[in-house]
Amino acid sequence: MKKVLLSGIKPTGTSGLHLGNYFGAIKQFVDMQDSYDSYVFVADLHALTTVHDAEQMRKNIFDIAAAYLACGLDPKKVVLFKQSDVAGPITELTWIFNCITTVPYLERAHAYKDANVKDHEVSVGLFDYPILMASDILIQDADVVPVGADQKQHVEYARDTAQKFNRIWGETFTIPEPLILEDTGVVPGTDGRKMSKSYGNTISLFATDEEITKAVMGIVTDSSGNRPENVYAIHKLLRTEAELELLYAEHAGKYKALKEALAKDLQDFIRPLREKYLALQANPEEVYAVLRRGAETVRVKVEAKQMQFKKAVGLE
Amino acid sequence: MKKVLLSGIKPTGTSGLHLGNYFGAIKQFVDMQDSYDSYVFVADLHALTTVHDAEQMRKNIFDIAAAYLACGLDPKKVVLFKQSDVAGPITELTWIFNCITTVPYLERAHAYKDANVKDHEVSVGLFDYPILMASDILIQDADVVPVGADQKQHVEYARDTAQKFNRIWGETFTIPEPLILEDTGVVPGTDGRKMSKSYGNTISLFATDEEITKAVMGIVTDSSGNRPENVYAIHKLLRTEAELELLYAEHAGKYKALKEALAKDLQDFIRPLREKYLALQANPEEVYAVLRRGAETVRVKVEAKQMQFKKAVGLE
Repeated sequence: MKKVLLSGIKPTGTSGLHLGNYFGAIKQFVDMQDSYDSYVFVADLHALTTVHDAEQMRKNIFDIAAAYLACGLDPKKVVLFKQSDVAGPITELTWIFNCITTVPYLERAHAYKDANVKDHEVSVGLFDYPILMASDILIQDADVVPVGADQKQHVEYARDTAQKFNRIWGETFTIPEPLILEDTGVVPGTDGRKMSKSYGNTISLFATDEEITKAVMGIVTDSSGNRPENVYAIHKLLRTEAELELLYAEHAGKYKALKEALAKDLQDFIRPLREKYLALQANPEEVYAVLRRGAETVRVKVEAKQMQFKKAVGLE
Repeated sequence: MKKVLLSGIKPTGTSGLHLGNYFGAIKQFVDMQDSYDSYVFVADLHALTTVHDAEQMRKNIFDIAAAYLACGLDPKKVVLFKQSDVAGPITELTWIFNCITTVPYLERAHAYKDANVKDHEVSVGLFDYPILMASDILIQDADVVPVGADQKQHVEYARDTAQKFNRIWGETFTIPEPLILEDTGVVPGTDGRKMSKSYGNTISLFATDEEITKAVMGIVTDSSGNRPENVYAIHKLLRTEAELELLYAEHAGKYKALKEALAKDLQDFIRPLREKYLALQANPEEVYAVLRRGAETVRVKVEAKQMQFKKAVGLE
């Protein structure tokens, strides 16, 4: 039997989605969909810690689901659902976990400590979100949770909480394992640094041909070598080293030609993703239908688990 | 139209229920059942902060419901339900409220401050319970919430939270008012101090005749006056001052006779409550049926409200 994999994606707006997100996370999820019994959810309850506008929230939820589908997430292989469609069982479990979690334990969470340093008026949602995340994971009896190396603590909190619950009320939850994603730092931006929204060095995931040309032509190059390294680094995401060897030898020193070659490759790569994304935007019902079916599938599973944990603690 | 009244009762064991609880709270709830559209719930999610044994939890839930029914709560007039039967909508709302509540705001809550002074390992459940309570109240659109004078802060937190939500996402919740219960301090124990489990000076609500006799005969009296004040103070709960005037004049100075008269009055008062309580214990299905009907009634109301607040924040 395949292992159960759970992954959440926070709907905080797709306008900033870029190639770094694609190669650092989305593609890795898509590549795993055959190897695991995969559940991917739009983490709208988590997004509530920052998104307080209803229209924006609805748009973000739709857009992120459409983006993942456009990038190849296959709803026949993956259960894609909206967290809030099973909010009841999840938040009930969060409450139960809160009753066996201490305040100092949550104060030690990285995200809270970082936020609290900047602003002492941190929300209780942000404070408590490791426990909501533990509930997301444990209610699915997930075996593995893919995370970046810097997010390992999330899975540790879920493991601790499952162990605590099982000790108090009897064996109920599977202890999940983190599945560390490849370092996302390898995706370089147009200035050679890690591709990141905050550096303004990104190439948008659904960029038009013109936008791609503009971004690539703006790549910072130095003239110290034969090869424009910042161009090559991005090119490496799309082609094998052997292919690039030939290409960069052919155009040695001709930075403009190499940039044009990269732009063309990026356009060919991004075009089908963009077209699929725009098609889903034009036909939103397709996305909603996927989320609805996902909710139906996951609801059956989650409600069975809910009955189990309610009985365990004595609420049923 | 009658105003909506909501009241929660925490199932932390009925073995300690005593006359002080009856006159200080239970009777007042029962007396209000005709004047309000009343909802009374067994607050089992709140009890989870302290009760971590499933059998104990189930027994506590049953016992407290049976106790209230035995004391005259009429399920035809009051919707009596178990909080966890509508846990989903309530805890989902708690999560949403958590996202607009700051940590320092909760740190200022009395119960947390008191608990934190004694034990720095306070649970997140105890820390967050004012927000669960706010959810209990606001999801019902309660107009009034009966509370002891020392519990006014609970309703203030609910009011603040409703106002904050309405400001951010539009008018959604009714702002509740506290209904201050008569001071429960007036119910005296067998030693003249306030009747309280922690003083060991209680008369159990469902005591047998023998237990009542023993408790009353053990009442501490002084011989400084004509009237045994500690006897008289309890007696006043059961009879008018005019009746007592005559009785205490007739037996002036005869403390034993006065104690016997009080024991008899208490036995007559407690007997029907005890008999009803034992009858319900012998026929638990009657209690479960009341809770089931209550859950069905309240579920319709609460799920409609849930759809309203989900739409308001953009989760639907």
